[in-house]
Amino acid sequence: MKAIIVKPPNAGVQVKDVDEKKLDSYGKIKIRTIYNGICGTDREIVNGKLTLSTLPKGKDFLVLGHEAIGVVEESYHGFSQGDLVMPVNRRGCGICRNCLVGRPDFCETGEFGEAGIHKMDGFMREWWYDDPKYLVKIPKSIEDIGILAQPLADIEKSIEEILEVQKRVPVWTCDDGTLNCRKVLVVGTGPIGVLFTLLFRTYGLEVWMANRREPTEVEQTVIEETKTNYYNSSNGYDKLKDSVGKFDVIIDATGADVNILGNVIPLLGRNGVLGLFGFSTSGSVPLDYKTLQEIVHTNKTIIGLVNGQKPHFQQAVVHLASWKTLYPKAAKMLITKTVSINDEKELLKVLREKEHGEIKIRILWE
Amino acid sequence: MKAIIVKPPNAGVQVKDVDEKKLDSYGKIKIRTIYNGICGTDREIVNGKLTLSTLPKGKDFLVLGHEAIGVVEESYHGFSQGDLVMPVNRRGCGICRNCLVGRPDFCETGEFGEAGIHKMDGFMREWWYDDPKYLVKIPKSIEDIGILAQPLADIEKSIEEILEVQKRVPVWTCDDGTLNCRKVLVVGTGPIGVLFTLLFRTYGLEVWMANRREPTEVEQTVIEETKTNYYNSSNGYDKLKDSVGKFDVIIDATGADVNILGNVIPLLGRNGVLGLFGFSTSGSVPLDYKTLQEIVHTNKTIIGLVNGQKPHFQQAVVHLASWKTLYPKAAKMLITKTVSINDEKELLKVLREKEHGEIKIRILWE
Amino acid sequence: MKAIIVKPPNAGVQVKDVDEKKLDSYGKIKIRTIYNGICGTDREIVNGKLTLSTLPKGKDFLVLGHEAIGVVEESYHGFSQGDLVMPVNRRGCGICRNCLVGRPDFCETGEFGEAGIHKMDGFMREWWYDDPKYLVKIPKSIEDIGILAQPLADIEKSIEEILEVQKRVPVWTCDDGTLNCRKVLVVGTGPIGVLFTLLFRTYGLEVWMANRREPTEVEQTVIEETKTNYYNSSNGYDKLKDSVGKFDVIIDATGADVNILGNVIPLLGRNGVLGLFGFSTSGSVPLDYKTLQEIVHTNKTIIGLVNGQKPHFQQAVVHLASWKTLYPKAAKMLITKTVSINDEKELLKVLREKEHGEIKIRILWE
Amino acid sequence: MKAIIVKPPNAGVQVKDVDEKKLDSYGKIKIRTIYNGICGTDREIVNGKLTLSTLPKGKDFLVLGHEAIGVVEESYHGFSQGDLVMPVNRRGCGICRNCLVGRPDFCETGEFGEAGIHKMDGFMREWWYDDPKYLVKIPKSIEDIGILAQPLADIEKSIEEILEVQKRVPVWTCDDGTLNCRKVLVVGTGPIGVLFTLLFRTYGLEVWMANRREPTEVEQTVIEETKTNYYNSSNGYDKLKDSVGKFDVIIDATGADVNILGNVIPLLGRNGVLGLFGFSTSGSVPLDYKTLQEIVHTNKTIIGLVNGQKPHFQQAVVHLASWKTLYPKAAKMLITKTVSINDEKELLKVLREKEHGEIKIRILWE
Repeated sequence: MKAIIVKPPNAGVQVKDVDEKKLDSYGKIKIRTIYNGICGTDREIVNGKLTLSTLPKGKDFLVLGHEAIGVVEESYHGFSQGDLVMPVNRRGCGICRNCLVGRPDFCETGEFGEAGIHKMDGFMREWWYDDPKYLVKIPKSIEDIGILAQPLADIEKSIEEILEVQKRVPVWTCDDGTLNCRKVLVVGTGPIGVLFTLLFRTYGLEVWMANRREPTEVEQTVIEETKTNYYNSSNGYDKLKDSVGKFDVIIDATGADVNILGNVIPLLGRNGVLGLFGFSTSGSVPLDYKTLQEIVHTNKTIIGLVNGQKPHFQQAVVHLASWKTLYPKAAKMLITKTVSINDEKELLKVLREKEHGEIKIRILWE
Repeated sequence: MKAIIVKPPNAGVQVKDVDEKKLDSYGKIKIRTIYNGICGTDREIVNGKLTLSTLPKGKDFLVLGHEAIGVVEESYHGFSQGDLVMPVNRRGCGICRNCLVGRPDFCETGEFGEAGIHKMDGFMREWWYDDPKYLVKIPKSIEDIGILAQPLADIEKSIEEILEVQKRVPVWTCDDGTLNCRKVLVVGTGPIGVLFTLLFRTYGLEVWMANRREPTEVEQTVIEETKTNYYNSSNGYDKLKDSVGKFDVIIDATGADVNILGNVIPLLGRNGVLGLFGFSTSGSVPLDYKTLQEIVHTNKTIIGLVNGQKPHFQQAVVHLASWKTLYPKAAKMLITKTVSINDEKELLKVLREKEHGEIKIRILWE
Repeated sequence: MKAIIVKPPNAGVQVKDVDEKKLDSYGKIKIRTIYNGICGTDREIVNGKLTLSTLPKGKDFLVLGHEAIGVVEESYHGFSQGDLVMPVNRRGCGICRNCLVGRPDFCETGEFGEAGIHKMDGFMREWWYDDPKYLVKIPKSIEDIGILAQPLADIEKSIEEILEVQKRVPVWTCDDGTLNCRKVLVVGTGPIGVLFTLLFRTYGLEVWMANRREPTEVEQTVIEETKTNYYNSSNGYDKLKDSVGKFDVIIDATGADVNILGNVIPLLGRNGVLGLFGFSTSGSVPLDYKTLQEIVHTNKTIIGLVNGQKPHFQQAVVHLASWKTLYPKAAKMLITKTVSINDEKELLKVLREKEHGEIKIRILWE
Repeated sequence: MKAIIVKPPNAGVQVKDVDEKKLDSYGKIKIRTIYNGICGTDREIVNGKLTLSTLPKGKDFLVLGHEAIGVVEESYHGFSQGDLVMPVNRRGCGICRNCLVGRPDFCETGEFGEAGIHKMDGFMREWWYDDPKYLVKIPKSIEDIGILAQPLADIEKSIEEILEVQKRVPVWTCDDGTLNCRKVLVVGTGPIGVLFTLLFRTYGLEVWMANRREPTEVEQTVIEETKTNYYNSSNGYDKLKDSVGKFDVIIDATGADVNILGNVIPLLGRNGVLGLFGFSTSGSVPLDYKTLQEIVHTNKTIIGLVNGQKPHFQQAVVHLASWKTLYPKAAKMLITKTVSINDEKELLKVLREKEHGEIKIRILWE
């Protein structure tokens, strides 16, 4: 079958015919691929920069792709022929208690696999076999934006974890019982920053998006439709602090040099959470004793956020469905391009580099 | 202004012109009523059966209505002219800690008020004044079914509380981290039963609706669209237990004679929760020592469920928005009738008695 | 070796020499028994009344005893020769997620075993072999009252679960952040009632013990030392309600006819919890619609409480240690009698019937 | 009356007669001081190094002392003449929701006061007046070590918060349901490090204490009695990682230059928590992108830990009581010196500088 092939840790990507027998199979349900999403992680693999990416055992290539929607070919165990499904990409180690309860996002052995990234073939191929345990139903009514359920699942888990961590505060809710009074600064306005913004707004928190430029058209739509604030940080963050005050939650969704953290930590308020998401590949941020004193004296927390699992995929489906009603213009703009699997030239281009203004590019198998 | 007036504990209801100065005012934002919802509680008041209903202090009448959507007449504190808003109906005692943190659903003094029910004029009137703290924005995109946010808020709180209580179980999630393996029996298929079904399905749990007859058309639509099971209980519950086994959650949403509980308690499984919702007005259920032994030995819980607050209204808005996408046919059928405020004859009729197949009847002010 | 033998469901008990090879073994650590505790469950088995008690597979007798302290004969995996240890009596099914995480108190299959009660030989024998996973260290400094760690573990789990369930209430703590303002009614003042009282007092809650008579000497000591209140309920519970008001927690620790619940349910306050502990063997309590309405309208919960696990045994050890300092007189009176394994006549007597004023009788192996 | 006086931000300390009318009063219960504890914060104030320390409004001096035990002079509201009591030192802002529920450790306005440190006179004086809300009973049976309840309350809150934060991990408990498999590294073995060690051991976790030297006699006693491990870090932390592996919790209890964090962060394992306690006054630790990547990919958290409140004081009392039984030798060694209020020379010396091997020095008023 046709598949998109990489050979980490080496750079490079190919669209190639491969023998089905050489590809990893995960279960009994045959799923024909309809869409794949492309994300920054894919490009890091393609460009030979993701040190975490490894080949499946005993093989010299890896099928790329951890974002996919496919169609069930034959009914089985609660899934019917014709159902649209999305696979959960990280699969457990089979040993630790978190994996045994379906939560390899907190795997304790580190022996999990990640389809398309680490030890397991991914889903950029014509079809694959999978197990009901790892499949999430995608209602046809959200087929148009459904591929976002995978990246959104990571955000769902992240916000769930932040809210869980804030239960350490006796009363973190507002005087009306909601979270409406809580202020979030989302630094970085790529797809991750946009999804964090949409989801925090759905939870009721006030959001400020920040980037070192004026907002793009998509961002502007999100801002207007969700009543989010925007800050052009090219003049530094002091002015933001002066005008808005400190934030209850700050999300680093930049993937940029980590020295950005030095700029935003001073904006974190009492009982605040700094959530680190994504994968910075350069820089160093010094934490001096005064910063650490303040972390201690005002109950601050810094937390690493990674990987949503099946419950988060399911929540993502519900939230995408709600956004089609609540934020219809933004929802329509989130898929910024669809590339045919047959348009190999364009395909290789978008697999190698991010486009200007891109939120999500998807591949269509037809 | 025109208002719908009752005089609890006496039966009766009138549409009447009343002097604005005689009506309760709750804040500075003037809101012109567009819709009111009618629910069982309203009819109990109208028919003189709700002993909990009391007049506002020093008055001889009460404006009915605790479900409302209105339009903001003048921008104020985060609300803009033209915004649709829904008031939170229960307001805190101002003394206990739960009310101070915006959660009068857990008021400890019992000194709370409930607009349209208890001590406070309700919203079946041309306009009222309210405070931002008690107003929930209703996006125009859900205006058609938005009135359901009030009853749904009660269900949101109920399921949130059940999930909170189940945290006593070390692992209540399934082997894929979701709640998909958990089985819920919803007894009673009126509006409350239907909303419980829709929301539990949104959370991923398997649901069985039960009633002593075949499903109505609306129920049939909900069943098909949400993939819910249905059980005609006219032959007793033993057969259901034989075919399905025991349930993790049972919800009594009947409002009927409480002897129904005697039939369903034997269907509650290990670590299970029996949630009591609604307002039964007759009967008595005996719990014998064997039933109580089993409650002890298998960690069961019986819990009373009442009243959603502002955070639950906001969740209800998100879920209604998602249902318009996920369950569009069911969503369209949930408002079973709209009656004009000017059609007094029809109005008085629907205020007095429930219609066959009714889910939600609303009043339109025009 | 010498062992105490029963043959459920038949009544009867024998002290007998049995072949070690015929007895269940649970691991590699040989433990020589020093103490056994006797509790109501043992007597129900001896008297042929515990329908839950079953023989080990393929055997025609059961070694009694689920409360034991023994001494490690040879060092192994963190346990040293001479260490005092107590076995955890309930062991998991090996299948369900709760058992996999060490919490068979919430076993979902019901396929757990309970040493000395159900499917597994108990510890009333000269020695047994066990696994580190199921052994709790008993510091020599609490050897005198250490046998109480087993029944106390059940109470630790019960109060932990009640506190967990009360997290459903946004603010259940008092205005000083403690639980000091919460009032508990403990109905029944046998060993379970006394341990509940001691532990709730340790957590800071106000406690009322109730029984249909004046307090015994031990109870009087507990009352004085822990500053607990006592109510002689022979005149009914209305007077208690009149003088004290309603309670936040009511514990049924009577083991008596369940109609007692009908008397105390009216004393349960808003957001309250009725905890059912123990094993009533007669009666029936009617819950009428008014009682159920109040459960709904005031957020009440009824919960079955059973079985502590290893974390609760460890907490019990810490609490027993603290009571030797905080409540030294009461601590000294909790072991009301020690019977030698060689005094067979006395032994059989205390195995058959409860003594007046008994808190805990233990058997000494010497 | 006699009082110990400081004038922050200036260095210096005096024992002086002051007019009672010039001192802050907090309520109606007169309490005669028996003991004060001296801690590092007191010495920072005395030595003019604590920038957070401020004078009470409108005054030019501050009574030092936030650790105290006194005796109630006249019975009032649940307190009896002769009762020993300890005051809670931090008092709420009266405005924010956390302070309203008795938890000024999470004050959101920062407008709290701290007796003896910030805006409120402390307890190093002959007597003071206080409110029942802020008083914790100290049983006479722990009078000898009771002064430790104040610093221990901070540790109680810290560990409670860490356990709360770890609820983000679906299963953080071990396969026997306990925390026995969790490994803690406590860096710094002063009073704070010793109390963290004792309390983590009480909770069942394995502990490694680390310092740049061999253990002192007190530390050696704690190590032996609590079965704690000790690591001499003068050769760096790599060897510890090689022999023990990574840690689930690391506590910085050094108060030293923050560059120590750079040494220990690499020892933090998956899903781990780095708890920052205390008050470093120099240095800077660089977090490079690789460290931050690992924080993200393995769900790590860094958390500031500060200030126990009344519920933590009460837990501290129970734990101190348990230690007298469980760790009697260590318990006896925790008060390393008692200085009479009349021995002014010695008093001023211990107020100015820490003694070698000091755990807690207390002042005796007689």
